[in-house]
Amino acid sequence: MTTISVVYHSGYGHTEVVALAVGEGVKKAGASLHMIKVGPDGSILDADWEHLNSSNAIIFGAPTYMGSVSGPFKMFMDATSKIWFTKGWENKLAGGFTNSLSMSGDKLNSLFQMAVLAAQHGMIWVSQAEANASTSEAGKSGDNASINRIGSYMGVMTQADNVAPDQSPNSGDLETARRYGARIAESAKRWG
Amino acid sequence: MTTISVVYHSGYGHTEVVALAVGEGVKKAGASLHMIKVGPDGSILDADWEHLNSSNAIIFGAPTYMGSVSGPFKMFMDATSKIWFTKGWENKLAGGFTNSLSMSGDKLNSLFQMAVLAAQHGMIWVSQAEANASTSEAGKSGDNASINRIGSYMGVMTQADNVAPDQSPNSGDLETARRYGARIAESAKRWG
Amino acid sequence: MTTISVVYHSGYGHTEVVALAVGEGVKKAGASLHMIKVGPDGSILDADWEHLNSSNAIIFGAPTYMGSVSGPFKMFMDATSKIWFTKGWENKLAGGFTNSLSMSGDKLNSLFQMAVLAAQHGMIWVSQAEANASTSEAGKSGDNASINRIGSYMGVMTQADNVAPDQSPNSGDLETARRYGARIAESAKRWG
Amino acid sequence: MTTISVVYHSGYGHTEVVALAVGEGVKKAGASLHMIKVGPDGSILDADWEHLNSSNAIIFGAPTYMGSVSGPFKMFMDATSKIWFTKGWENKLAGGFTNSLSMSGDKLNSLFQMAVLAAQHGMIWVSQAEANASTSEAGKSGDNASINRIGSYMGVMTQADNVAPDQSPNSGDLETARRYGARIAESAKRWG
Repeated sequence: MTTISVVYHSGYGHTEVVALAVGEGVKKAGASLHMIKVGPDGSILDADWEHLNSSNAIIFGAPTYMGSVSGPFKMFMDATSKIWFTKGWENKLAGGFTNSLSMSGDKLNSLFQMAVLAAQHGMIWVSQAEANASTSEAGKSGDNASINRIGSYMGVMTQADNVAPDQSPNSGDLETARRYGARIAESAKRWG
Repeated sequence: MTTISVVYHSGYGHTEVVALAVGEGVKKAGASLHMIKVGPDGSILDADWEHLNSSNAIIFGAPTYMGSVSGPFKMFMDATSKIWFTKGWENKLAGGFTNSLSMSGDKLNSLFQMAVLAAQHGMIWVSQAEANASTSEAGKSGDNASINRIGSYMGVMTQADNVAPDQSPNSGDLETARRYGARIAESAKRWG
Repeated sequence: MTTISVVYHSGYGHTEVVALAVGEGVKKAGASLHMIKVGPDGSILDADWEHLNSSNAIIFGAPTYMGSVSGPFKMFMDATSKIWFTKGWENKLAGGFTNSLSMSGDKLNSLFQMAVLAAQHGMIWVSQAEANASTSEAGKSGDNASINRIGSYMGVMTQADNVAPDQSPNSGDLETARRYGARIAESAKRWG
Repeated sequence: MTTISVVYHSGYGHTEVVALAVGEGVKKAGASLHMIKVGPDGSILDADWEHLNSSNAIIFGAPTYMGSVSGPFKMFMDATSKIWFTKGWENKLAGGFTNSLSMSGDKLNSLFQMAVLAAQHGMIWVSQAEANASTSEAGKSGDNASINRIGSYMGVMTQADNVAPDQSPNSGDLETARRYGARIAESAKRWG
């Protein structure tokens, strides 16, 4: 069975809400799912490493802090070097998502970081393929169902206000994340 | 007298509106201004090259097309290689701005391109220093005065709907551009 | 039959030599090949657009000039926007290569540009998976068979001295390009 | 007196050798120097934060691990967010350097990360202005005095073989670092 891992860090819960939406998309597309949360020191369980190593695709997720992925997620990225030496993830599919307080917030830089990590592992990167909402009306109150309102393609970008994670990011962002999870699961089935 | 050049390409007029706002900021800060428009083939006049070469700072501007600066602006960038050989722009100040239809639209990639160009010339890059608006309310109708609503720091990002340039980008984006022009002019005076 | 297009610009012939090596790899892996050369104004033939649209994978190639893809190649990239509107390249595989005079020469920026273009089209990006040579001995005279001597993963980076294209880039760079072409052809077969 | 801080992380000592060379350049140019080493958990001393806050320029340094700055250095970058809120580093000068095992090794991505951090703080980024060595002979044994042999401009890139830090990076890389330190010190004096 096609198996997908979502490995993410979340500082205040907003990125976790997005991660869960990505996971919903994965399951909706009929794939098996492992949700792996990176700790504040960048660590994951030994069992999680096993899950990552046996997955068909790995989706990376992190908040963007000061213009790049959060420190704990970078600690995790560094720890993958032991797998890099043995090419353990070569030819797996990969994707990424990131959340921050502002619309851009330099989130593209975080997606580049994840894509470079994936490339170093010899992975295949799956883009976000939903067209952007592309107007200034996108994402405002009363129209929070816009898909890809931020206009991101390397992966999913979401934006969260400084409120509780059950209130923000908005429903359009979460649906964008859900579709991305489904896209990667379907891509992994096709990739075989 | 401190002299600043704004060299930009604009395909449909939206980036030009932003360029003019940057120019207003430059003049408001008491610096002398050259506005230089790049043609569809990437060319500028010989007199424009003279202006660039004698300026204290150069501000680059272009629309983001398909995720990076417009083709004509890249043709202009390539043409600066003749100056690169003689280090003609070394230690000038530099900055950049870019416009696209969506909020992110991969505009950070365009600012990176401009910053790398400036670095190859040995220039000094001036960031955009206004704090971001940082909420989903930013930039919606009735609140179009938000400064840095997109949340960009390497330079100025603006967003234009698919309407006439006198209607979009919104007034907050243009004020952000104006302040950036002033910031660079003031930086150039300080740099001496 | 699996069909791969290599679409590239070459200013002085060095990038063309790399493009031909990529093409050799494609054919060696048993796929059908279209070599498409972008003109100085960024144009390609109508028949070339047909080839691109019917290919299973598209490999982008350009010299890095002043820190990003050459102006003519960017003109071509912009022209793909008409395909973007109809999602004509969605789910095709993509890859990229770039050449410049120095080892880094900011070539990663060019590969990012190509990857962002591919992502906007909803394509799937295939990394360069050969381990790097990783020592200062790599690529010096008498050891010019090093694979991935520059240490690049998003795609292939080659380095050419300021001599004729039949003398540089070296044989290791060309073999790296050949293997990348084969990798993409094999990936396209697997992707189906 | 003009004061410069070099804040860096080093995992195996190679980046530290580069940091020391940057520091030598700073002192040679007549500026006061603070060397600040980031711990494995990303922490620095309280006194170090004071030094950073009172410096005219801050030079960031880190190894590139898996395609971006080392995890500990990213932990430090995140910790600067408390300063970001008060704009404590606005208008300071900034620069960066990074080391890895291969020539490119995606080091440009690390410099982008540092430049984005600096931009978020409203800092002014000083490029590396030495022309590149630009031939395949650069950096090989017997010619290890090449300046900027890797061809980097956003900041300094060095390459270290998998040997002790007193043997690698080579003397050309260290001289490049020294000149960059001097350049930033001189820029800080001019900036005032």
